[in-house]
Amino acid sequence: MSPFLQQLERAWEKNDSLVCVGLDPEIERFPAHIRDAPSPIFQFNRSIIDATAGLVCAYKPQFAHYAAYEAEDQLERTIEYIHRAHPGLPVILDAKRGDIGNTAERYAIEAFERYGADAVTVNPYLGGDSLEPFLRHAGRGVAVLCRTSNPGAVDLQDLEVGGRPLYQAVAELAARRWNSRGNCLLVVGATYPRELAQVRALVGDMPLLVPGIGAQGGDVEQVVASGCTAAGTGLIISSSRAILYASPGEDFAQAARAATAGLREKINAARRSRPT
Amino acid sequence: MSPFLQQLERAWEKNDSLVCVGLDPEIERFPAHIRDAPSPIFQFNRSIIDATAGLVCAYKPQFAHYAAYEAEDQLERTIEYIHRAHPGLPVILDAKRGDIGNTAERYAIEAFERYGADAVTVNPYLGGDSLEPFLRHAGRGVAVLCRTSNPGAVDLQDLEVGGRPLYQAVAELAARRWNSRGNCLLVVGATYPRELAQVRALVGDMPLLVPGIGAQGGDVEQVVASGCTAAGTGLIISSSRAILYASPGEDFAQAARAATAGLREKINAARRSRPT
Repeated sequence: MSPFLQQLERAWEKNDSLVCVGLDPEIERFPAHIRDAPSPIFQFNRSIIDATAGLVCAYKPQFAHYAAYEAEDQLERTIEYIHRAHPGLPVILDAKRGDIGNTAERYAIEAFERYGADAVTVNPYLGGDSLEPFLRHAGRGVAVLCRTSNPGAVDLQDLEVGGRPLYQAVAELAARRWNSRGNCLLVVGATYPRELAQVRALVGDMPLLVPGIGAQGGDVEQVVASGCTAAGTGLIISSSRAILYASPGEDFAQAARAATAGLREKINAARRSRPT
Repeated sequence: MSPFLQQLERAWEKNDSLVCVGLDPEIERFPAHIRDAPSPIFQFNRSIIDATAGLVCAYKPQFAHYAAYEAEDQLERTIEYIHRAHPGLPVILDAKRGDIGNTAERYAIEAFERYGADAVTVNPYLGGDSLEPFLRHAGRGVAVLCRTSNPGAVDLQDLEVGGRPLYQAVAELAARRWNSRGNCLLVVGATYPRELAQVRALVGDMPLLVPGIGAQGGDVEQVVASGCTAAGTGLIISSSRAILYASPGEDFAQAARAATAGLREKINAARRSRPT
């Protein structure tokens, strides 16, 4: 088993949680006392992380939310802080990279060396050789976009190729070719539980990163029923805004903790009531 | 016509050139006197830009090459320098972004506001609503990946959907839906001239960004014959390493100018000898 999967399995077990908190800072939604502090994004993230670290299996910072604020340094500090203060919790850098040859190698350096991420999200449109520079970092995870949670996902991902939709062709490529080192994951949106079940059937126990719970409206029970492995794990269920901005006031971290605990318990209730 | 296309058409005409210089810094390939200077990437780029500005239709900095060096500031300075010292030349930020909803909006802010790029490259796998936050900046160009120049491009892009390969479905979506404001472009690799001709047939006069000339081995005459519009333009033919690293010595900028002039003349000879 790849070191990333080992880390993930231990986090699933230790915290009894499939919840991943998406760290998508929107400074205008921060409480006033943090908004005006130095390094507000890092301060905000640190409070969220310390409040939720016992309840999650991973954190997922979204790159664009840092780049738009010219806050790459605060992204670096956030990841470094998670590793130092809460060792064992993997960090998935959600950057959805996709490029070729030596450029893909630069993106792998950026994600794994500069930022020290344990895993990164990537886009499959450019094909297997665009993923290889990431996958060859065998200790890290590589989460390939498969079926996303937005309405426009149908434009390409649902087009029929060889009798099944394109996203299933991607799932098959991941299972048969891209996962040769055991460090490949797939991204499948929570808003499409039927598609989630179809992907699970194609990829065995491969972990699935599932955004779209919470603000985007995905249903927890359907996600668990459709996506869990026989062991009752296999999912990294990510929620961002519903946790980060659960309260606009000074109690934001406690509110985030309560929202995380609530989602974790809802997921765990669904795991317990699965037909076995 | 969109402001970006106007700018591009003026640059094609003024410099009588379809050449785009890709600004992909690799510090270890810089001449020693620049490698050890402060802000070496910016210094290198400025010399390349000043040496080639009269011979090109655009510049294309590749984001990963800056991010891997933690050199976002030098990317900002490079784009600002092009606009200030050589007004009228568009800058295409090659970032291949692809994300949804408010995250795509953040990436558009990053590209167009933070970096001030005139156009950006994006990935179509997530569908039309992932492109809309870029496209709604009607004054800027949005270059959608269609058929890329790497061997693995066949994994998804050549899969048959409804009787034609996926990349042609992307070209049709671009022509019919995504180009409603006239600011959409497509990226088609130089290594596949037949595919380039098929895309040209589907998209009318839409500009095509063509990487893969030079180091990647694309053939200039075939590219021009396959991809030019009836007016003899329509292409942004990008070369990076063959220009940037034409000489390893202190004469690198003159060598880059000579390589750019040579490519421009080769392209222009092919334009002149096209059947009309």
